[in-house]
Amino acid sequence: MNDRITPRRLKGFRDMLPEAMMPREHVIETAKAVYRSYGFSPIDTPALEFSEILLGKGGDESDKQLYRFEDAGGRDVALRFDLTVPLARFVAQHAGDLGMPFKRYHVGAVWRGERPQRGRYREFVQCDFDTIGTGSIAADIETGLVISDLLDALGFERFSIRINNRRVLAGLLDRLGLAASSVPVLRALDKLAKVGADAVRAELVETAGTTEAQADEIVGLGGLGDDVDTVLDGLGSLVVGSEIGERGRRELIAVVEGMQRTPAGGRLVVDVATARGLDYYTGTVYETYLDDLPGIGSICSGGRYDDLASLYTSQRLPGVGASLGVDRLLAAMEELGMTRAARTPAEVLVLMFGDERLADLVALADGLRRGGLAVELFPDARKLGNQLRYADRRGHRLAVIVGETEWEAGTAQIKDLATGESREVRRPELAAVCREALGR
Amino acid sequence: MNDRITPRRLKGFRDMLPEAMMPREHVIETAKAVYRSYGFSPIDTPALEFSEILLGKGGDESDKQLYRFEDAGGRDVALRFDLTVPLARFVAQHAGDLGMPFKRYHVGAVWRGERPQRGRYREFVQCDFDTIGTGSIAADIETGLVISDLLDALGFERFSIRINNRRVLAGLLDRLGLAASSVPVLRALDKLAKVGADAVRAELVETAGTTEAQADEIVGLGGLGDDVDTVLDGLGSLVVGSEIGERGRRELIAVVEGMQRTPAGGRLVVDVATARGLDYYTGTVYETYLDDLPGIGSICSGGRYDDLASLYTSQRLPGVGASLGVDRLLAAMEELGMTRAARTPAEVLVLMFGDERLADLVALADGLRRGGLAVELFPDARKLGNQLRYADRRGHRLAVIVGETEWEAGTAQIKDLATGESREVRRPELAAVCREALGR
Repeated sequence: MNDRITPRRLKGFRDMLPEAMMPREHVIETAKAVYRSYGFSPIDTPALEFSEILLGKGGDESDKQLYRFEDAGGRDVALRFDLTVPLARFVAQHAGDLGMPFKRYHVGAVWRGERPQRGRYREFVQCDFDTIGTGSIAADIETGLVISDLLDALGFERFSIRINNRRVLAGLLDRLGLAASSVPVLRALDKLAKVGADAVRAELVETAGTTEAQADEIVGLGGLGDDVDTVLDGLGSLVVGSEIGERGRRELIAVVEGMQRTPAGGRLVVDVATARGLDYYTGTVYETYLDDLPGIGSICSGGRYDDLASLYTSQRLPGVGASLGVDRLLAAMEELGMTRAARTPAEVLVLMFGDERLADLVALADGLRRGGLAVELFPDARKLGNQLRYADRRGHRLAVIVGETEWEAGTAQIKDLATGESREVRRPELAAVCREALGR
Repeated sequence: MNDRITPRRLKGFRDMLPEAMMPREHVIETAKAVYRSYGFSPIDTPALEFSEILLGKGGDESDKQLYRFEDAGGRDVALRFDLTVPLARFVAQHAGDLGMPFKRYHVGAVWRGERPQRGRYREFVQCDFDTIGTGSIAADIETGLVISDLLDALGFERFSIRINNRRVLAGLLDRLGLAASSVPVLRALDKLAKVGADAVRAELVETAGTTEAQADEIVGLGGLGDDVDTVLDGLGSLVVGSEIGERGRRELIAVVEGMQRTPAGGRLVVDVATARGLDYYTGTVYETYLDDLPGIGSICSGGRYDDLASLYTSQRLPGVGASLGVDRLLAAMEELGMTRAARTPAEVLVLMFGDERLADLVALADGLRRGGLAVELFPDARKLGNQLRYADRRGHRLAVIVGETEWEAGTAQIKDLATGESREVRRPELAAVCREALGR
């Protein structure tokens, strides 16, 4: 055929092959199960919105990255670039129906026309949860618990949830007379872990226009240490006399007290230097680091905000939530050896012989499935060596072989594909022996 | 604020509220679990493709419905309108990596700029599974088993899987000398269940240009009845002497024999009048009907095809698969009362009292979660009546009430929100009593 089309994909976009997609589905399904266990409900919104809904919500940079076009009906439309702006539109539009508080999770693709680079894609999945319509600190505490349960459920053993409260920072800046420079100050402070105290001090003086003494006090936030009680004590003098600062400290203490009553307490670090870039946050902020891979950055971040949907409604909707960094988390799991390299969800491969036994093998595989196993039946009667190589490549764990000899003897061979060992079992016991071999 | 933006959504697109999204996630997760149990692996492909990949694959109608535009880099791109064309591109591009046979499932949104109408949307989810790279009838049998297991797992008790083989129809047309008119003939035949024998006979003669006698033989296909053995016998004389027809009959018999060895056999109907519109299919075809709602049409359809990716590769890739109609299935489940009207995944709502007990209630809710329950903690200390009304509206099943009296007595009140009955239990037994009240 001369007019064959070269199969190719747009730059910055990914095909997910089974070996990448299986751990991805596991992470997303685990996250959903944890969200649900706290009463967060799933929602979904269209990938396409009117452009005016999306424009100007994420700043100039995000406007430039919009996939925006005119549809066949002449409407100015664009692909969503995050799940927060659609949530705001959704809540404003359905507030009467939803009732408050409203707890939702949303897992979906978003699109940004960024310059493609290592680890950055033009299409990626966000996995957010939020509690909207309440200012209660109970929701702040639960946000931390969800993060902790989620990483536990994924099998992470060493991680820390670093929390802070924006009001503490606001109080400190207030006391130092720097409230007007909060954006450049917080931007500098956010780099503390990465670039160190001297560089941040220099940026504060040169870019944010603080005095040397002010810079010392701000950088001193990072020196309060890791012990929760010490930090909270130390904070007292930093914000004393600032109403907003003292409120922030009280909220921080309440979040700590709540989390400490659960297993999540052991994951908690109060880090008063955590600012989080987004202007959007007004209270508690969260970042989550893996102790074994601090360099990859926060894998779950979020915070409290005062007003979700002021662009679309006069109803004031405070909330708190966080977003799981699915790509980053998967990269970490792979680096830490937490994902099994398999390309099939089926543990067992039943090998195929000639057509005359087809219906028998279909029934045998079906019986194993009803016995609680995930089972693939190889469709073609290829040489056994070929079928076994296929099983190795795919990552099946057991091969079940029933040739004419075994049919007549009422038995089956089970081959463990990791060890290469085979054993013969009576067919009525096949499912039980397979389950046992798989450690179940 | 004067420049507030009206929150609105594009026509033909949907917001999924929790009450719609919860059963949807259940259906999709159930489908994935069944697909996996047969060794189908998940994949994903980008929502956006080069337009040339998508154009001309689904016919003129589908080209006109494409969401097609020029991206910021001047590339001619479009949103995928199904998951089959991207699968073909994917398999052609990764064939070396994937190895054959390749069994994949793919759940994802697709976009078509159709005229919006009841039950038709411009964005909807497809939920497909396919076995590629084998002509073995084993894969045809398993396709039927997957459909059967899937509907079983969703709780359907009365449904039938109607199968046919395109080669049987080709053989009949061959024998009748109508091979050249197969498109209008099959189009007419496909309407048999809907419009009846007389109307189809008329269309065959008038539009497809058959003789009265030919029309009688074709319409006679529908008269073979529902008994599998009778149909297969009757078929013998219809296709006798046509090589392709006899091959089709042999394949049909093999699929029936395979399926009959499993519980899916009880769902099987051989319906030689099932043609399925798509030209694409060449062998076995599947349609699935709910006995209690035949009018909604087939909820899971598919078939065998000869060559998936001939537009992108010279490698011949036969395959077989089917697609679950998620929207149609959900409409049926709602109509049959199979979905619980709830807006929360949390069975239990723990009511909130004043701030002084906040950390205690956080710990109590956390303990219930660790006891295997999905638990929401109401965040604000509103009046109990308000909190209970919230629980009713949301669809929580139990409310847990621990006021100061209960704290001191070491107890908790459990209120069954369906019956309105309350009981007091000792707190260490709270999780166990809740589980019991929920029938677990």
